[in-house]
Order: sequence, then structure tokens, then C-alpha cells
Amino acid sequence: MNTLKGIGFFFDPESIAIIGASPTSGKASHVILENLKRIGYKGSIYPVNPKYEHIDGMKCYASIADIGEQVDVAIFVLPASKVLDILKGPVENIRGVIIISSGFREVEKGKLLEEELKMIAEEKGIRIIGPNCLGIYDAIYGVDTFLVPTEHVKRPKKGGLSILTQSGSFAVLIMDEMATEGIGVARIVSYGNKVDVDEADCLDLLADDEDTRYVLLYIESVENGREFVDAASRCAAKKPVIAIKVGRGEAGMHAARSHTGAMGGKYEIYRAAFRKAGIIEVDGYEGLKDACRVLDAYDIVDGNKVLIITDGGGIGVSMADACEDFGLDVKRLSSSSKNNLSTRLPAFSAMDNPIDLTASAKDDDYFTALEEGFMNGYDLAIVTVLWGAPALTAGVVGRIYEVQTRYNKPVIICSPGGEFTRNMYRLFEEKGMPVFSTPEAAVRAAAVLTGRGTVRDNILKGAGPWI
Amino acid sequence: MNTLKGIGFFFDPESIAIIGASPTSGKASHVILENLKRIGYKGSIYPVNPKYEHIDGMKCYASIADIGEQVDVAIFVLPASKVLDILKGPVENIRGVIIISSGFREVEKGKLLEEELKMIAEEKGIRIIGPNCLGIYDAIYGVDTFLVPTEHVKRPKKGGLSILTQSGSFAVLIMDEMATEGIGVARIVSYGNKVDVDEADCLDLLADDEDTRYVLLYIESVENGREFVDAASRCAAKKPVIAIKVGRGEAGMHAARSHTGAMGGKYEIYRAAFRKAGIIEVDGYEGLKDACRVLDAYDIVDGNKVLIITDGGGIGVSMADACEDFGLDVKRLSSSSKNNLSTRLPAFSAMDNPIDLTASAKDDDYFTALEEGFMNGYDLAIVTVLWGAPALTAGVVGRIYEVQTRYNKPVIICSPGGEFTRNMYRLFEEKGMPVFSTPEAAVRAAAVLTGRGTVRDNILKGAGPWI
Repeated sequence: MNTLKGIGFFFDPESIAIIGASPTSGKASHVILENLKRIGYKGSIYPVNPKYEHIDGMKCYASIADIGEQVDVAIFVLPASKVLDILKGPVENIRGVIIISSGFREVEKGKLLEEELKMIAEEKGIRIIGPNCLGIYDAIYGVDTFLVPTEHVKRPKKGGLSILTQSGSFAVLIMDEMATEGIGVARIVSYGNKVDVDEADCLDLLADDEDTRYVLLYIESVENGREFVDAASRCAAKKPVIAIKVGRGEAGMHAARSHTGAMGGKYEIYRAAFRKAGIIEVDGYEGLKDACRVLDAYDIVDGNKVLIITDGGGIGVSMADACEDFGLDVKRLSSSSKNNLSTRLPAFSAMDNPIDLTASAKDDDYFTALEEGFMNGYDLAIVTVLWGAPALTAGVVGRIYEVQTRYNKPVIICSPGGEFTRNMYRLFEEKGMPVFSTPEAAVRAAAVLTGRGTVRDNILKGAGPWI
Repeated sequence: MNTLKGIGFFFDPESIAIIGASPTSGKASHVILENLKRIGYKGSIYPVNPKYEHIDGMKCYASIADIGEQVDVAIFVLPASKVLDILKGPVENIRGVIIISSGFREVEKGKLLEEELKMIAEEKGIRIIGPNCLGIYDAIYGVDTFLVPTEHVKRPKKGGLSILTQSGSFAVLIMDEMATEGIGVARIVSYGNKVDVDEADCLDLLADDEDTRYVLLYIESVENGREFVDAASRCAAKKPVIAIKVGRGEAGMHAARSHTGAMGGKYEIYRAAFRKAGIIEVDGYEGLKDACRVLDAYDIVDGNKVLIITDGGGIGVSMADACEDFGLDVKRLSSSSKNNLSTRLPAFSAMDNPIDLTASAKDDDYFTALEEGFMNGYDLAIVTVLWGAPALTAGVVGRIYEVQTRYNKPVIICSPGGEFTRNMYRLFEEKGMPVFSTPEAAVRAAAVLTGRGTVRDNILKGAGPWI
């Protein structure tokens, strides 16, 4: 049995019916059928379509009532009005529904249909995910209702990240990126127009979900603010919750409206809600990706004193700028640390924060500098490795890793560059140290680890070099 | 003869002397010797070192005077005090010097040495690049004084980008990235502490340089503000000049000081200078990379009306947000355009800006939407292609390209995703259309094309969703 309560049956259903099932390869309902088989879904599958007796060797049912058994989840990919016709009929044996079909609130003529859908669901006591969504991807229990072929969109391995999103295309994208980047996923829910199940239901569920180590939230709109803040607070108290709010400005809000029919509301209200709930907001798609990569490797840290080590002064300076934009504390090195380092680092090193080892850097210098910092109160480190330094060898990876594990503090690797550099990423990743290819990405990751995801916080305070 | 005046002889020298030359493979002076040979430097090379008679089969001279010929450029990689000793001696046959050595202004005990160096140069009428720099990489004339082995740092092919930078590590980095990304370079100058040749000299040169189509400027500090603004204005009037200012805040400024000994000065002064000179400022390393990629493909456009086309609503909304952050005009579609499109695009498309073709998108829909936009006053387009849309084929690339060339307006491709998606980049790049892997990167590129490189402009105006 799974540990999920409430809407948990959507993630580990004992039976799934595919309404409007088709034997034709490439057809929507057939793609879903294939994806369920491929991921190794363990429950019963009931294809439903009066036109067929069998589909892919499975018995096909003329109607939902015909199944004659309790059905945990019924998946609809039929036109909107057809979905309603069926749900108005006998569906007593259905517990939950995933409506992938579009044509509801997000278009003018679908608004009434969606109202009707809502009423039917309430009357009949059926839980609904969608409409205008992709449904569920569950790597732990093996469910995949995503209407995208695996040739174009890879599925991620099992891991600690769960994703909640209004936007189906976003779900697909981030799933595909995570798969390619090797970041593991627990569950993804694409709930689209949210006629019933919404982010609050899902956050409530994920709060107690042992498989979910951190949560990613893509938000265009929230309708029930109080429920959202309650559920998010409960979840964020137990694990990091990262959010991106899209549709912030006028053009974006307008676009969101025609996307999921959402009425956005002012961005400041969302910001305040995020803060209240303890959600870490990120500024965009890049921030999201960086957050996932770093949270896959490390937990949130308590302080925000960041040590920057570099073998290229320019990148160190850029990094210090970016840290200040995010309100990170680039605390100066103590004079005793400076003394300790001055006899042990290369002659022209800059013994401060950033510590610049210069192009004379050797493998051991990274060890020395990092250990001095971690012994003296820095909470995390961003370490830049530029392979132009002639004396550096692959051994530097092990030296950095030694300090990282000894002090159990996060070390974020920043390693911009070309072909050779990119080939070296693997070495860091094998040790579980996340690598970023720009100073900005490394700093975004560091900011997330200290609970700061957006530069906006700092701008609005009027702090830093922005003003 | 080259078209470069003033300090142009540094880029196309008839002769180069390597002071302190060594026959030992891996030694700094030997790396430079090898790099000059590898790039096919056509002039004479004079190794100078009293210890050797020959190096790599070339005659080695005991001193600079011993060469007995005019030397266009002498390269020093000796310790700082040694450099001075030599320059105090007989060096009448030297026209210019590149001092790669560190140990000058950027460290306490080198400050006096640098003052002395400055005086000697003025007295003897020798032009100096450096110290604490890498010197020159010239892909057009074939000069490479960069002290980094080619195994770790690739050299870019010939192209229209020239780079001016105080930071050597930055020069190496961006060179390596450009090489790996396939972006061509004309000249790179790393001038470090700028005891003599500075950004103003170089901008003056590049203004009239026919091989340079656009210029990238990495700035920690500018000492001669008026000369800088004059030269930059002259250059920016003829070709795009992109700048990044590092050391913006307190931590960054402090770091810059120990990097090149630069006294930064307030960031606002730089911003005002950039604006006055017509320089496009970018916000960081990511912005720089995006600027290079897009300027490699397109010229700056006159207006700022951007059309967003997408097959994933969420990404469209993110893009609209980011465009507003940069002050781009996400102008709504006219009602006649909406009418034209409504009969020709997929049923649930959002006919607005963004135009959301949804996952029902077909190759031709991109053509239809893009043409409607370009016929109706949009200056450039950001086109998102998510390959999760089942009906899309590789043919979409050609359809987009058709409109791009017919209207001769920039089309920026945004295509986030995993393995399959990344493999498709090549198709766009072969048609000369730049591809970006995040909405933010695509928008940064669009902003650069309209002369807006930084979100700061907009923030400071108090505009957009930031406040």
C-alpha cells in the first residue's frame, strides 16, 4: 500500500479505464495505453469504446458501466462535449477522472461546459484532474498518462523531485530536461484548468509523501488563496518547495488567461503568499532548472555565508556581483584565515572572498582554501574550476570532494568553458557535486540553498548594486 | 597591409620576440611559441634568452639589442622586476610590448613597479599591452599570445566578433565557449592592468576595423572616462558594442580591486557612460553568451515589437513576462490578424501575442503565424518549438526559415527540452537561425537585438511587474 492519502489513489490506482480507447498506433488514447504498459503499470487496464471488442489483445468495453468493477481512474481524451455526455450517464463505479481534453474554460465556448463539469463532479462525488492537462507521471508506482510519445520526450528515472503544474507543456519540458540531466523524479501532476484537484490538494498529499524530497510548483493562478497557503505551509515545513509564478506582468497575465483561462491577480499577492508559506520563489525557467539540480544533491542550509573560490579573477568578481543581487553574504575572510592561507597558496593569489587562486592554481590549493573557509564559518561554497590553469589535474575533483564530505557542507561547482571543460563535468557529478556552466547559474543554485530564489526580494528592498 | 591604424601593429606584427624563451615543453614561453606556430603566424619570431643558442631549431638571441632588427612586438613572461630591468636597458628596436607577467599593481609590492613601468614606456615611446594579461588572439592575421594550451582551451574560427577584456580568465573562457559553440572571432585583446593600451585605444581601432562586425567589452574599471566615451561612441555608431560591467556592488568591487588593482567607482557612472556612448549593457556572463550567439546571426533591428509564437502555452507566458522585464513591446495582435488566423490555425490556438499553436501545432501553422506577424509590423519574432507536439516534423525548420528570409527579420528560436530536442538544434543552426534552450536566454537575445541588454534599465524606471 502507498503512503499517500486523499487523492493518493490517482498515483497508485488499482485499475485504469481509457475512455475512447483506440487500436490505432499514434492516436492519443493509444499513446497513453502504450505509455502505461512501458512504465510497467501493475493494475488492471480497461479500454472502453463501443466500436471495438478487443484492443491490443485486451478486452474492450462498450461503456464504463459495462466494466462491472470499481475503476480507480478513468482517462478521457475525447472532445469536451463528449466527456460531459459520458459523465452525465452511469459512472457510479468511477472514483477519479483525468480529463486530458481541451476545449473547456480556456476557450469561450467551453466556459459553460466547465461549469457543468464542476457540478457533475460535485453531485456524483467523483474527483477530477484537469481538464486541459496531461495528468499523472509517477516514477515510483509506475503510472504515465502523459500524452507525449517517448521518442520525443524522455521519462526521468526515480528520484526525490515532485512537480506540480498548471501547464502541460511545462510538465513535458521539465520532465524531458530532468531525464536528460539525470535528475530523478517521484511524481508529476499536470492539473490544467483545475476544475477540482488543485495545487492545495497536491501539496497536502506531498507534505506526507516519503518519496518526495522536494517540490517544484509552476503557477499561473491560484483560486483558493487560503487553502493554498495552508497546504503550502504544511509542505514547506517538511521539505523545500520551489515555485515559479508566470504571468507576472500585463502581457504575461493576458497570455496566461488564454492559456488556462486563469484570472491571475496581482503578482505582489503571490509573492506575499509565497513568503508566508515558506516557499522559495525562483525567477524563471533557468532558476527552476538550477534549483532542481542543486536540490537533487544537497539540502537547504541554515546560514547564508558563501565562500567563493576561483582560479579566474573575472569570474570571481561576476560571482560576487550575482551573490549580492540575491542577498547572499559574501563575508570577507578573517585576518587569521588570510594569514593561514598566505603562506600556503600561490604567490599572487587574492586572499579574500572571492579567494582567487589565479591560473597558478594546483589541485591542493583548492583543498587548502576550501577547508580554511569551512573551518571558519562559511555555510556553503561556490568553487570555480577553469581548466585553463596549466597545473590543474583531474585530481582536483577528489580534493574538493574530500573537504565537501568532511565538513558536510554544500559545494557548488561552477565550470564555464568549451569542449574539454564540459567533458570534465562527469567527474564532479560522479561525486554527487552539481556543476553549473555559468556564474549566474551557480549563484542561483546557491541562493536556493539558502532559501533565496529570486533577485526580486533584494531589488524591492532597494538593496545591492541595483539602485 | 592591414586596415588597422594606431596600435594596429600589435595585431599584424612583422616580427615577434619572445623574451625569456625556453626550449622546455610546457613552460610558459614555450607554450606561446607553439601557439604562434600552430596558428600560422607569418612574421619573424625571435627567441631571446642568453642561456640558449637555439630553441626549436630557431636562432636564440642573448638580448633584445642583439636581434639587430626592428621588433614589432616583444612578449614578456618573466617575473615583474626582471621585466623592468630589461626595459630599462637598450630596447630602442622595440615598437610594442606585451607583458603577460603578474606581480604589478594587483599586488601590494607591485604598485611601485607598475608606476616605474609606466614612466619607462612614456620616456622610450614604447606601447605596452598589460601587464597581468594574455595579450592578443587574432584569428584574421594569425597571432596567438595566449598562455593556455590548446588541449584545454579551443581556439575559435574566424568571424565577426572582437573581444576586449581586462580579465585574462574571461578572455580564455569566452574564447573557449565561442570555439565550442561555433561562433567566429576576429580579434581578442586581454589588456589586464592597462598601464598603456586601454579599452579606448582598442575601441578606436575596432571602429574602423572591417573584420569586426560587433564588439564585446568586459569592464572592471575605466580610468579615462572621457576618452572611453568618445572612442566607444565612435565605435558604437558603426557596429554593436556589448558591455558587461563586473564589480557592481561592494563585494564585487572589492574583488575587482584585488584582481586587476582597479578602483571601480560607482556603478551608476558606468551605466550613464554606456548609455551616452550607445553601448548595449548585458547583465552577466549568460547575457554575453546570448548576445554573441544572436549577433553572430542577425543585425540590430530598428523597432522593439516582438511577436511570440509557441506550441506550449506555459513557455509563451514565461516569455511574455521576460520580454516585459526587458521593456520589449509584446504588442497585441490586431483584430484583423486575429480574424485571418482564426480560420487557419488549430481549433484551440490562442490567437494573440503570444500566439499559442498548442500541442496540435503542425509545420505549416508556424509559417502562417509568423508571416501574419511579419506582414503586420512586428520587428522580430521569438519562436518556441517544443517537439512534444506530435504532428511536428523536421520540415518546420524550413517553413520558419522561408518567412525569416522572405521578410528579412530576425527569428530567434527557443527550444528547451532534452535529448531529442537538443539533437534538432543543428537543423536550425544550419539555416543560420540561433537556438536558445531557455525562454530567458531567447528573450535576452531579443532584447540585445533591440538595443536593450539589461533588465536594470526597466527596473530603475520602476516599470513592469518588478514593482
